[in-house]
Amino acid sequence: MRNIKLVIEYDGTAFHGWQSQINARAVQDEVSNAVKIVTGEECELIGASRTDTGVHALGQVANFLTASNIPPDKYVYALRSVLPDDVVIKRSEEVPADFHSRYSAKGKRYRYLIYNSVSASALLRNRAWHIPQRLDFNAMCKAVPYFTGTHDFSAFRASGSSTKTSTRTIHEAELDKDGDIMCFTISGSGFLYNMVRIIAGTLFEVGCGKIDPDSIPEIIEGRDRKKAGITAPAHGLYLEEIFY
Amino acid sequence: MRNIKLVIEYDGTAFHGWQSQINARAVQDEVSNAVKIVTGEECELIGASRTDTGVHALGQVANFLTASNIPPDKYVYALRSVLPDDVVIKRSEEVPADFHSRYSAKGKRYRYLIYNSVSASALLRNRAWHIPQRLDFNAMCKAVPYFTGTHDFSAFRASGSSTKTSTRTIHEAELDKDGDIMCFTISGSGFLYNMVRIIAGTLFEVGCGKIDPDSIPEIIEGRDRKKAGITAPAHGLYLEEIFY
Repeated sequence: MRNIKLVIEYDGTAFHGWQSQINARAVQDEVSNAVKIVTGEECELIGASRTDTGVHALGQVANFLTASNIPPDKYVYALRSVLPDDVVIKRSEEVPADFHSRYSAKGKRYRYLIYNSVSASALLRNRAWHIPQRLDFNAMCKAVPYFTGTHDFSAFRASGSSTKTSTRTIHEAELDKDGDIMCFTISGSGFLYNMVRIIAGTLFEVGCGKIDPDSIPEIIEGRDRKKAGITAPAHGLYLEEIFY
Repeated sequence: MRNIKLVIEYDGTAFHGWQSQINARAVQDEVSNAVKIVTGEECELIGASRTDTGVHALGQVANFLTASNIPPDKYVYALRSVLPDDVVIKRSEEVPADFHSRYSAKGKRYRYLIYNSVSASALLRNRAWHIPQRLDFNAMCKAVPYFTGTHDFSAFRASGSSTKTSTRTIHEAELDKDGDIMCFTISGSGFLYNMVRIIAGTLFEVGCGKIDPDSIPEIIEGRDRKKAGITAPAHGLYLEEIFY
């Protein structure tokens, strides 16, 4: 058996997220059905990250075992012919038998886009969070570095979610601006449920003057979800890369 | 009566172009219906440019006469509430009675996007022309300046189209590259039917080595459509701005 790793880009707009679901369109189902068609085998497709409805991916990773002798790098082309055009396999390769998309992952990088303009944008409507009021970019930049390092991020976790530990290490966090578009990138060892969207929502509240940028360490330490900002909408979020 | 000018952005993907049509979704119909709803009057909406199916606009311009006393700058908000989200009014203002979106236009600027990468892109699938083979960017850049100036552009006009004259003045033409994305911008006094798409298709053939960049002046002078390149697909084209 071969273990095949796929790097997948998708436009999350028309999907109910990554994970297979009954009566809803999921990326996992589209890809595993496509693998079945090209290999002729049942396929257990393991995804690295369960992106939510509307979230996009530039570099989702998934793997599956197969007896097929399709050359590993040819899955890019073989799957293209059967996948819908909002899911694209960017790369495919054979990986060691013990590679597991989720458990082998060492970290992830996300991107969050904010479109900060008085008027909305037709072209960015499903691709960036539209904020009509003028955001204070400098204040937001001041807040960003406080998120790096190892912290208990309970304040930035969707309420009701449960994981063993809420301590995560953020390696890099950066905010850039190009015209009306702000791009926030964050990479780390792992992320709690909705963590990036809550951080983006907190940066938004910093930009509005509702949260003082220098109060971020206190908000982190307080571990109280209510002290952090709102959860930014899903359609501004992009899963950019999974590190191994 | 007031003459109201609208600047309109749209995602052309789900439209059969700008112009009103029977049994097909057109941007002109969406906007004029929305104007009817907010003013309560019939609306003759004059568009500056008849974009084709799949072509996008960042700055299409249209105008209409109305007896309504809605403050001219408030159409941005009034129309937003009734328009579908793939059409957005960016600005609205009152203009002199003799302003005509098409006849008053002094020029236009277009943008054409090429996504030059081995693998396709789910997020850019309706936004840029995907070219898998590696294009020679330097050769393409060498070809670009030949398009500026006043020329008879018969070689870059869709065959079968008829206009009084095929002489046009191109003020600026530029090609940039950012990662896998090439952005071609061109502004001029006016454009023949499909002219920007044929120029983009010609640049593509230069990038493939099929057309010598230094043969562009000869192709222009020859006025033979068959000597120019293919017509690039509509979904890479953006109507960026109309000048008055």
